[in-house]
Amino acid sequence: MKRALKLAENGRGHVNPNPMVGAVILKNGEIVGEGYHEYFGGNHAEVNALKMAGEKSAGADIYVTLEPCSHFGKTPPCALALVKAGVKRVIIAMKDPNPLVSGKGIEILKQNGIEVISGVLEKEALKLNEIFVKFITTRRPYVIMKTAATLDGKISTVTGESKWISSEASRKCVHYLRNSVMGIMVGIGTIIADDPLLTTRLEGEECKSPIAIILDSKLKMPLNSRILETLKDRKIIIGVTEKANKDKIKQLESMGVLIIKTPLKDEKVDLGYFMNRLGELNIDSILLEGGSTLNFSCIREKIVDKVMCFISPIMLGGEKAKTTVGGEGIKSLDQAVRISDIKLTNIEQDILIEGYIKEE
Amino acid sequence: MKRALKLAENGRGHVNPNPMVGAVILKNGEIVGEGYHEYFGGNHAEVNALKMAGEKSAGADIYVTLEPCSHFGKTPPCALALVKAGVKRVIIAMKDPNPLVSGKGIEILKQNGIEVISGVLEKEALKLNEIFVKFITTRRPYVIMKTAATLDGKISTVTGESKWISSEASRKCVHYLRNSVMGIMVGIGTIIADDPLLTTRLEGEECKSPIAIILDSKLKMPLNSRILETLKDRKIIIGVTEKANKDKIKQLESMGVLIIKTPLKDEKVDLGYFMNRLGELNIDSILLEGGSTLNFSCIREKIVDKVMCFISPIMLGGEKAKTTVGGEGIKSLDQAVRISDIKLTNIEQDILIEGYIKEE
Repeated sequence: MKRALKLAENGRGHVNPNPMVGAVILKNGEIVGEGYHEYFGGNHAEVNALKMAGEKSAGADIYVTLEPCSHFGKTPPCALALVKAGVKRVIIAMKDPNPLVSGKGIEILKQNGIEVISGVLEKEALKLNEIFVKFITTRRPYVIMKTAATLDGKISTVTGESKWISSEASRKCVHYLRNSVMGIMVGIGTIIADDPLLTTRLEGEECKSPIAIILDSKLKMPLNSRILETLKDRKIIIGVTEKANKDKIKQLESMGVLIIKTPLKDEKVDLGYFMNRLGELNIDSILLEGGSTLNFSCIREKIVDKVMCFISPIMLGGEKAKTTVGGEGIKSLDQAVRISDIKLTNIEQDILIEGYIKEE
Repeated sequence: MKRALKLAENGRGHVNPNPMVGAVILKNGEIVGEGYHEYFGGNHAEVNALKMAGEKSAGADIYVTLEPCSHFGKTPPCALALVKAGVKRVIIAMKDPNPLVSGKGIEILKQNGIEVISGVLEKEALKLNEIFVKFITTRRPYVIMKTAATLDGKISTVTGESKWISSEASRKCVHYLRNSVMGIMVGIGTIIADDPLLTTRLEGEECKSPIAIILDSKLKMPLNSRILETLKDRKIIIGVTEKANKDKIKQLESMGVLIIKTPLKDEKVDLGYFMNRLGELNIDSILLEGGSTLNFSCIREKIVDKVMCFISPIMLGGEKAKTTVGGEGIKSLDQAVRISDIKLTNIEQDILIEGYIKEE
């Protein structure tokens, strides 16, 4: 199963909004077939493994990281393919989290006399597909809030200097992250202040830039922003409200930008509504690279699932220097946002603190 | 030598401003004597080890974490004691960092025909006695800045709530720290806001409260502060300037408080001058438990040697919430204070990030 999980991981960034899945076929203690879901629309992992095994799959064991599917989608149901191939036993890491189909694949297998063992390395499989699990159960994108700060929590000096607080290694890490998600989200403040491209840049490696998602309630988007030049290679979505100028909306739409209008919430884009709309567009994952104010709004509106805080071992001080999470702030300690399952990683001299926002 | 270093560690908090030292005597591969410097004014480690070994020390090897002393202080010179005991070989971790005596102990030993090996586990020994090394070479206290913040760098909510951001385990850690240093330093802001005792509280364990050092340029110290009630058990030092009321100075002095007047620097206590005065009082180590403003002043004035940042896995947000280091702030990134030799520790759910302020 470990090998199957490792194979599955190869699909990261290529299969969204599908899950990453790996499969390994064993016969007489020998691997006779293996495969993974390689790209969105491509063969499922089981099909690739069965192809490789050919006739050897008859009477074999198959280890698969996710319950085989039971429905006719882009491909025929894998559960039936396994029955047809004559496998003897199916070992599954996790059930399909989609409430509409969960358990149905296992049912088909059992009805056809195949032994099924479920829950092997389940925790690891759930973590591997944390994005898919959230998306398929809520139809909202999985949001990773990435911050880059000093040891004293600052994202820039009192004068606004922020390039670069993080080390080159940390910044490279962020580009790998960008390469693995479907969307990258910032506020209009970041566009105006930094005029960023928000593209994925990995030297010598194949990469794709995620859909740029910009929160801009009054549509202040400068028409000469550098990011608009990236429209030829990637989609751009701007979240606006009724306060946005209608002519400017049309102008940007004619350039190819997708404008999503949301109701007003606290005079800004309604983030919950916006997330639902992005989910409808099949955007399963978003890297939030927001500033101080947007980060607070996203946390308050409970749209963040995971935080990844890159900390550089420097201190800047400054009562007025911006911190990772600003805004109005939470007034009382017992209302604090709790982060669980903390993981610490050294990234050269920087520190990465990862964790999950606890549901209340 | 590892055992000698471990023995030395037992003296932590009891020997200041002396170094922690451990010694192990080996004869024919067997430990025949060992000891450590147990308390300030007590026997040196070598003497304790020699006492235990008795006549067996003749022809033996002695491992000692610090170069044996060569001068008559509170005790006779250990180098001579070793000569007298007839040891064959002395293995030393680090030379005496005191420039006035460094190398003299080794010289005495060599002149008496004893073989000397120096530099064994030197790095570990230097770290063990980092406080002593700084104090003996600069005559200024070693300052450890301790902070307790959220993952987004806040030390309180926007409304000022701060009890407790850190977990119980982290707070216990801080009491161990207090128990190991000679002084604890805060600003008058902390006294007025929290009215703390700044004592060491460790349930069921022997402990002593460090000297309370309060920075209070205008001497705003409320005469009914709870901390003044601890005067019967510990010293209190207040750093003031010419802006302090002279009658109030006399009043506090009559209560037993030591007032140190410093020149004005940026309208406040001159921290460099103040540190020199504390050094003259043989205060070798200070735990700085300052607020946002004092922490920045201490960093700017370069009096901090080590930082210990306790981070709780929560987020509070708030543009106006206090952060670990506030004040005016450093204006440009290339002037940022750099922290080196970062060490990460999990303290239950909290994270401790330790490091040293790099000298430029």
